[in-house]
Amino acid sequence: MATITMYGFWRSLAAYRVRIALNLKGIDYEEIPVDILNGAQHSADYDKINAEHVLPTVIDGDVTLFQSMPILEYLDERFPEPSIMPATPAERAYARALALITVADAHPLVVPRVRKHIGATFGADAEATETWGRHFMTEGLATYEKLFSRRPPAPFALGTQPTIADICFASHAAGSRFYKASFDAFPLCTALADTLNAHPAFAAAHPLRQPGAPAAV
Amino acid sequence: MATITMYGFWRSLAAYRVRIALNLKGIDYEEIPVDILNGAQHSADYDKINAEHVLPTVIDGDVTLFQSMPILEYLDERFPEPSIMPATPAERAYARALALITVADAHPLVVPRVRKHIGATFGADAEATETWGRHFMTEGLATYEKLFSRRPPAPFALGTQPTIADICFASHAAGSRFYKASFDAFPLCTALADTLNAHPAFAAAHPLRQPGAPAAV
Repeated sequence: MATITMYGFWRSLAAYRVRIALNLKGIDYEEIPVDILNGAQHSADYDKINAEHVLPTVIDGDVTLFQSMPILEYLDERFPEPSIMPATPAERAYARALALITVADAHPLVVPRVRKHIGATFGADAEATETWGRHFMTEGLATYEKLFSRRPPAPFALGTQPTIADICFASHAAGSRFYKASFDAFPLCTALADTLNAHPAFAAAHPLRQPGAPAAV
Repeated sequence: MATITMYGFWRSLAAYRVRIALNLKGIDYEEIPVDILNGAQHSADYDKINAEHVLPTVIDGDVTLFQSMPILEYLDERFPEPSIMPATPAERAYARALALITVADAHPLVVPRVRKHIGATFGADAEATETWGRHFMTEGLATYEKLFSRRPPAPFALGTQPTIADICFASHAAGSRFYKASFDAFPLCTALADTLNAHPAFAAAHPLRQPGAPAAV
């Protein structure tokens, strides 16, 4: 019996974040694909489920959840063990702030509606769109690198256990690869990405390991 | 004695969100202005305080906080009364999701670094930049209107008490005015914005009531 249903897709970095949390907590779930590369998120059926026409949506019984950060927080409140949140207010704030570098600063710039808008407004073609995405993903990596140099991961961002900070960073690292951003100047980001990719819960959730994904991007 | 120090600025929508929470909770604070319209956030001194060169940063004793959402969550954990979070996991998730329509979907598209980037990359002038901002603020209003039509504010977004959903929506409404977005098609957004603007904690925090702000934008 699936406890949780998630509307997701291999290419969705936000769905990837939620899959990691589900895996870390060992929650049984079913994922229903919504092909965001072909606009399936704009169907009338999906509008009833998600007013924003974005991924993911998570259904837990009679509760419908949207936006990846609130879903991660909800999963941690509803299924507390193992926790993906640090134990103190100050540490929780730092974990959430690291998470939001992805969720609020980098990822929003590269979602389909924005890629489409720079094409429609400024005539950005496929190459210009990729360059746009690479710029903002690289900017995110640079911010993470600076913060990691001030407080190095050991081995996870906040210490010995993975938190929402690692979950969101993992999606940023994968997205950076999608946009062919170079990691050369970011050794601490590279090391943390390697740590996370070697973790079973993260590895199994990776976009390129989901149904319908290409072998590489 | 100021308990909290915030690096903010009248024009920062993220600082506005934090001011509302501080006012709602009656927390004494000092605000140090960082003129983001003139690039003061990129100074070497501010880099030491905020690696991302963005507003706000909040200092609480030996704790330094960045990113508005984690700051709001921290303030609610540290100063629990009156709470700006609903009481159940499902309601908290909905409040956070409404908040993130602003924090993760709309606001990131109109911050200074993005306005600058569309100028440098696509030659967007002042008018094109304002049109760009208006587009994304209007998109946010449309999403809120749809969600409010499915669950009407009564009178606040989640019921009788203001939450992080209202705090973030207030900043989206103010930002929408900055970009001259029309509210004509969004009566539920208009009503909620009016409710919030009439609330003393929200009114005192409004960008146009801060030191250095113009009389109108």
